[in-house]
Amino acid sequence: MSKASRTKVQLFEVAIDMFSRLGYDAVTVKDIAEEVGVTERTFFRHFPHKSTILFPASAEVLSAARQQVLDIDAGSPAEAAVAMTIVMARQLEQFTDWHPERYRILHSSRELLAVEALQHELWATEICNALVERFGIAELDGRLLGALATLVLRESNDDGFRSGRQRATLVEAVRASWQRLVSLGVLSEHLLSSE
Amino acid sequence: MSKASRTKVQLFEVAIDMFSRLGYDAVTVKDIAEEVGVTERTFFRHFPHKSTILFPASAEVLSAARQQVLDIDAGSPAEAAVAMTIVMARQLEQFTDWHPERYRILHSSRELLAVEALQHELWATEICNALVERFGIAELDGRLLGALATLVLRESNDDGFRSGRQRATLVEAVRASWQRLVSLGVLSEHLLSSE
Repeated sequence: MSKASRTKVQLFEVAIDMFSRLGYDAVTVKDIAEEVGVTERTFFRHFPHKSTILFPASAEVLSAARQQVLDIDAGSPAEAAVAMTIVMARQLEQFTDWHPERYRILHSSRELLAVEALQHELWATEICNALVERFGIAELDGRLLGALATLVLRESNDDGFRSGRQRATLVEAVRASWQRLVSLGVLSEHLLSSE
Repeated sequence: MSKASRTKVQLFEVAIDMFSRLGYDAVTVKDIAEEVGVTERTFFRHFPHKSTILFPASAEVLSAARQQVLDIDAGSPAEAAVAMTIVMARQLEQFTDWHPERYRILHSSRELLAVEALQHELWATEICNALVERFGIAELDGRLLGALATLVLRESNDDGFRSGRQRATLVEAVRASWQRLVSLGVLSEHLLSSE
């Protein structure tokens, strides 16, 4: 891990710890930077706003998903959308999104839930754009698939925390959610055959 | 339509007009109430915040969807989720959500998009709760179906405005979106057979 990445992870971990102890509103960017021993300018190089520190893996997740689509040789747009969720889940695990304390902080504030919702909207849009570019499908088709992939990621993530179940990995939780949608008679069985 | 409903629709229409002309941030609740000739207290009886005036049909949409699920005698939870989107689309049409100017105002502000995202989160939760109550399915299954139903409603609505296509009705757009998901190989064909 590069020095910059280490600083980013450290900022995230210190911020989560401080938000947990003192409350999100009571902690400033200055407090977090001081605790880590960096300048505020360094903080803002990694995170444009205080709230974005709760989404540390955002850029990496999206770029991995994009690469996944470009690397796919065959298959349908729908299969590519499923594959993207697996790759994104793997990235989220490697970074620190799969994190119970982070989940509790996000759900303690309407403002933060709104930031999360916009973050998910961004994921859906990026998945849509990648699918449209790679497969030449209609924009509405891309948006439906992007929104579906995002909802599976989101619900798989939230379910682990909400239910208090500790899942082994987010990747497994995402696979299980796709499977549940097949079992519910919603998704076509063929969709997961290549998985 | 009752007098209270007429006032509500009037508040919505005046607010949309004022937001369009003057910008969302420049218009206060007081301005809107004065223009309609009612007190601020009356405004707040219909809408708890200024932003909620952009979601005038919220309560009616959710109660119609809930009723739909309770009235269903047979079918699967997935079929019920599809049926709920049709009923909700019909409610949204009757009220004023299906409204190009409203769409433009919502998309002019990050804050309003966040309010919309929370609104959609509420729809997903309510659909989930209704399905769990009616069919006794697991909460995660309910949430996946609730989120899927919400995404179809949202994308069907947005697509009409984004693409500049004027669809005949939101109900038709919602039906078409479900059909697209079948054509993409995502949804099981059986899902729409009873529709």
